[in-house]
Amino acid sequence: MHAGRRVEDLPTPAFTVDLDVVKKNAREMTERFRALGVNLRPHMKTHKTLEGGDLMTGGTRRQIVVSTLAEARFFADGGFDDILYAYPLPFDKVDECAALTERLESFHVLVDSPEALALLKRRPLHGGKHWKVWLKVDCENGRAGLRHADPAALELAQAIAAGPTELAGVYAHCGNSYHCQGVPEIQTVARTTTKQVLEFTEKLREEGVPCPVASIGSTPSCSHPVPEMAELQEVHPGNYIFYDVQQMMIGSCQLKDIAVRVLTRVIGHYPHRNQMLVDCGWTGLSLHSLGQLPTGYALVEGHPELKLVGMTQEHGRIEPVTGTLDFTQFPLGSLLALVPYHACATAAMHPTYYVHVKGQVLATWKPARGW
Amino acid sequence: MHAGRRVEDLPTPAFTVDLDVVKKNAREMTERFRALGVNLRPHMKTHKTLEGGDLMTGGTRRQIVVSTLAEARFFADGGFDDILYAYPLPFDKVDECAALTERLESFHVLVDSPEALALLKRRPLHGGKHWKVWLKVDCENGRAGLRHADPAALELAQAIAAGPTELAGVYAHCGNSYHCQGVPEIQTVARTTTKQVLEFTEKLREEGVPCPVASIGSTPSCSHPVPEMAELQEVHPGNYIFYDVQQMMIGSCQLKDIAVRVLTRVIGHYPHRNQMLVDCGWTGLSLHSLGQLPTGYALVEGHPELKLVGMTQEHGRIEPVTGTLDFTQFPLGSLLALVPYHACATAAMHPTYYVHVKGQVLATWKPARGW
Repeated sequence: MHAGRRVEDLPTPAFTVDLDVVKKNAREMTERFRALGVNLRPHMKTHKTLEGGDLMTGGTRRQIVVSTLAEARFFADGGFDDILYAYPLPFDKVDECAALTERLESFHVLVDSPEALALLKRRPLHGGKHWKVWLKVDCENGRAGLRHADPAALELAQAIAAGPTELAGVYAHCGNSYHCQGVPEIQTVARTTTKQVLEFTEKLREEGVPCPVASIGSTPSCSHPVPEMAELQEVHPGNYIFYDVQQMMIGSCQLKDIAVRVLTRVIGHYPHRNQMLVDCGWTGLSLHSLGQLPTGYALVEGHPELKLVGMTQEHGRIEPVTGTLDFTQFPLGSLLALVPYHACATAAMHPTYYVHVKGQVLATWKPARGW
Repeated sequence: MHAGRRVEDLPTPAFTVDLDVVKKNAREMTERFRALGVNLRPHMKTHKTLEGGDLMTGGTRRQIVVSTLAEARFFADGGFDDILYAYPLPFDKVDECAALTERLESFHVLVDSPEALALLKRRPLHGGKHWKVWLKVDCENGRAGLRHADPAALELAQAIAAGPTELAGVYAHCGNSYHCQGVPEIQTVARTTTKQVLEFTEKLREEGVPCPVASIGSTPSCSHPVPEMAELQEVHPGNYIFYDVQQMMIGSCQLKDIAVRVLTRVIGHYPHRNQMLVDCGWTGLSLHSLGQLPTGYALVEGHPELKLVGMTQEHGRIEPVTGTLDFTQFPLGSLLALVPYHACATAAMHPTYYVHVKGQVLATWKPARGW
C-alpha cells in the first residue's frame, strides 16, 4: 500500500529492505558455493518471506531450511518444496510433520535423540512416503546435536539408516562462529566444523552407512568459506540475505552489505538531559546487542556521534557518544536510520517490510509469524 | 481453533492467559480507583486485544489509552471510543490523528512541544471537531514530557488552552516507579508524581487555565495508590492486566497475580554440559531481564532450581542454578511453564494468546501489531 512512495515518507518506525543489496547478497552467496561445487540450501528464519525465499533460491523455490513449522506451512503454501525443518523434532509436532511429509515432494526432519527417532518409527506415513531424517551433530557449538565424536551419534545415524526412516543428511550449525572477530577466526571455526562433520560421515561410510549429505552453516562461515568446504555436499546459511551490525563486527560483511534499516523519527528534544527521543522502542528494534555497542543498541546511519542508549516499548533515547547534542541538526520530525544489531531479531518485530530500490518503495513483504 | 483443549496439549511455545487472574486483576484495579473516586483509563499497550480492553473497561469500551496508532485504529474498528493516544505527537501522523478525531466521538492526542502544537493548530478538522490535546509533563521520570516546574510547561498548557485546540488534560507517566523495590518506595514515587502534577494544575488554575483532568499512571503506583491520588481525576496503568516477574520484584504484585505463561517443551538433553534445551527462544519470550534474574531470563514455574541461562531464536538453554540436572524429571517432550519477566514484551512476540480457565482453553485472542 506504500508502493511508489519514498522511504522518507513512510510512517515510522519502518523496517526497510534495500532490494539491490538483498539481491547482491543472495547472488554472491549462490556464486560462492556454485564455484565450490556445494549445494546452497538457504535458511529462511531471518526474513520468513516468500519473496526473500525466491531470491535466495534463485527462483526455484526448492531446497530451503526453516526453523519453525509455521515457516514450513507458509513456504509450502507458497509453492516451496524440499523443505528441511532443521530443529530437534518437537514431540508435540510429529503429526504435523507427518502431514507435511505426505503433502510435499520432500520434507525433512531432524533429530538428535533415540527417543525422537522412536517417535518417527512408530508413526506410519501414507502415500508411500517415508521419513527423511537428518542427524544433528554438535561440532563444538554447544547447542543442539550429539557431539560428533560421541559414539551415540554414530549409533543414532545407524538407527536412522536402518529404516523405515531414511538418513537424509548430517547437519551441523557452526553457531560458535558468532564469537569470532575477523576472517581468520571465522575460518578456523569453518575449518574445524567441516573437518569434524566429514570425519563423522567418513566413519559412517566405514560402518557401511553412507550418508548422502553433510551440511554445515552459519552466515560467518559461509561468507568466508575455506577450501575444505568443497568436500561438503551442502551449506545452509540464512542471515546473509540481510546481514547486520553483529555480522559486520564478526567480520562476515561490511556496512554496505547490510540491507535493512529501521527508519525512525525524532519526537522530542530534552536539552536539560542532553537527549532526544525517537519513535522506535524495543517493539521496533528488539533489545539485541543489550546496548553493548559503543553506539548502544544500534548504529545511527551517518551519525557515529550518536548513541541509542535505551529503549522502552515505543520510545528510543538518543544522546551523543560524548559532548553536547546539537539539536538543530535533528529537528522534531526529522528522520534517522538505525542499522540493526541483529537483523533476525529486528525483522521478527515487524509485520511489514518496506522493500525499496534507491529509496523508492517497490513492494511490501509480509513475513510468517508464530510456530 | 484450540478452544476446548487443555493448555498441556497446545503446540509450544504457547502464550497462555489465565482468564480468572486477568478478571481479578481488572476488577481489583477498577474497585481500587472507584473507592478513591478516580477515573480509571486503562492502557492497552500490554495486551492490545479487544477482549482485554473489554475486561479492563468493564465492558464499556470507553476511555482507554493506546501507545500506537495501530492500536488506535484496531480499538476504534472494534467499537471502542474515547481513546487517548498518549504518545508525543509524531509529525508524520497528524493526518491520521485528524481522521481518528473526525471519526470518533472522542480521540485525544498528546504533545510536549510548541512545534507539535503548531502542527495541530495548522491542521483544520471537519465535522465541527476540534483537537483534544493533553500536555505531557515529566515528573522526575526522565522520558517524554516537559518538566513540571519548567515555565515552558505552563506556557505550552496556556497555548493549548488558547484554542482552537482544547486542553483536555495533563498526563504524567511515573515510569520511575520501575526502579523501586517494595511498596514504600513505590508509594514515594506515586506521592511525588501526584504532588507535582497537582501543583502544576493548581498553577494553571491560578493562571486562569483550568485543566479538567490530571492523570498519572504506572502499574506499580496504581497497584499501591497513596491517598493523595484521590485528588487526581484519572489514572492510566496498563501492565496490571497480566503483571509479570518484573512487577513482582518491584512489589506491585505477587506470583499468584501473574496471568501469563509461556509454555515450552523439552527438546533435548545434554548431560555433558548439564543443560537441556526447550523450544522457546527469544521469539517466544523476548530478551527482557537481559538474563539478570537469579533464574536467568524467566522463572520456570514450580522449578526454582532451574535457570534459563540463554536463548537463541528458537532454542532456550536451561541448567540448574547449582548442582547437577536430574534429567529424569524432565523427559523429552515434557512441558515447562515460563513466567515472563516483562509481559508487554513477551506478549508482543505472540500472534495468538491462548486464554484458559483452570487449564481449559476457552478462546484465542489476536492482538494488534505494527504502528
